[in-house]
Amino acid sequence: MTVTITAFDRSPDGGKGLARDTRVRWALEEVGQPYEVRLVPWAEMKQPEHLARNPFGQIPTYEEDGLTLFETGSIVFHIAERHPGLLPADADARARAITWIFAALSTVEPPILELVTTKIVEGDKPWRDDRLPLVEARIRNRLDQLTARLGDAEWLDGAFSAGDLIMVSVLLRLKPSGFLATLPKLAAYVARGEARPAYQRAFAAQLAVNTRPADSPPCPRPTAGLVSAQGL
Amino acid sequence: MTVTITAFDRSPDGGKGLARDTRVRWALEEVGQPYEVRLVPWAEMKQPEHLARNPFGQIPTYEEDGLTLFETGSIVFHIAERHPGLLPADADARARAITWIFAALSTVEPPILELVTTKIVEGDKPWRDDRLPLVEARIRNRLDQLTARLGDAEWLDGAFSAGDLIMVSVLLRLKPSGFLATLPKLAAYVARGEARPAYQRAFAAQLAVNTRPADSPPCPRPTAGLVSAQGL
Repeated sequence: MTVTITAFDRSPDGGKGLARDTRVRWALEEVGQPYEVRLVPWAEMKQPEHLARNPFGQIPTYEEDGLTLFETGSIVFHIAERHPGLLPADADARARAITWIFAALSTVEPPILELVTTKIVEGDKPWRDDRLPLVEARIRNRLDQLTARLGDAEWLDGAFSAGDLIMVSVLLRLKPSGFLATLPKLAAYVARGEARPAYQRAFAAQLAVNTRPADSPPCPRPTAGLVSAQGL
Repeated sequence: MTVTITAFDRSPDGGKGLARDTRVRWALEEVGQPYEVRLVPWAEMKQPEHLARNPFGQIPTYEEDGLTLFETGSIVFHIAERHPGLLPADADARARAITWIFAALSTVEPPILELVTTKIVEGDKPWRDDRLPLVEARIRNRLDQLTARLGDAEWLDGAFSAGDLIMVSVLLRLKPSGFLATLPKLAAYVARGEARPAYQRAFAAQLAVNTRPADSPPCPRPTAGLVSAQGL
């Protein structure tokens, strides 16, 4: 089986690992599934070829033997369903792990993304400074609730799962903001995620793509699989 | 098997069907699973008893034989996985239907919820009128992309699925805004969802709860199952 994902040709974050292909790379590394990467230049994101993969013109997408998926949550779940390692075998525990995937994407990430909207997309607007504390209070509320549930546990519900993978990825967006420094239990949770060898490999792979010299050929991945030349 | 969901004791929308328990009721009606409803008063949403069900203090939750789930997407997926009718049997078609659940919740709903933030939560702020067109443009962009993918199809990918159930529910939020009137294909898609008998039963059930006289006992559901007295 050949798995091909898409990623930014050059991520706007310059390789900080915040582009969502990092989440899919991480899941693939956790389960030991080699993959190829089709890099999509910015100018081609909304062109028909990529819109056929994802109607919203975003990365990542996932292709496997005639199946094309989009949406990070769906792709990570698909990987977790087809390989052992990211979802518990017990049916109830599995349902709870899936709940955390949805909680991370539907409840925790939206207020965090509003921080990007406020600081960057609307960073030149006159309301930026007055609106920022409202947005920060909504994030803080969610983080306090998450911290209370996590307690002293290592992961959100038993062993590390796809739910933790997505939640840690969502929280990593907060690193530059200083939020995590005020919540040591949550910061330690994120650090446990980052310390996983599979995350380290995923991070290094996206970094290599995003720090390659201009006009250079695409970088080979540090582990199995090569960056595909398709789409370049 | 007894299924118990939670809903607002009185929904802030007064019974327009926008509270997320409607989505779960709809899924349960589609598969013919009777359910009970525990109504949670506003003052109890962030109390320990409800936080044990949902750490973010929201409705709906789902309880079944010792399993407690939260997050609408996760609950609808759980129902769809355990009963025929909401996910295709073919593995690839099933993965694509699941993708639409995530797309509706992660990509289409967040900008739509920003409309609520702008008009209501921040409705008294001086930036309301200047910010509103930016938020509307983001919604319009997503709706145009969704319309392009839907084309002349009846549903997003083959037969009606849990992906359509969530997408229609997300788009129903736009009814008061006038957005759908400018997008006839999307409006017709939403109308097809609303016309389903299971949606009609779900809508009627939440309406009965939200329009019952003050101090009256909880209303019985129009179909199988009774509103539980627990939590009142």
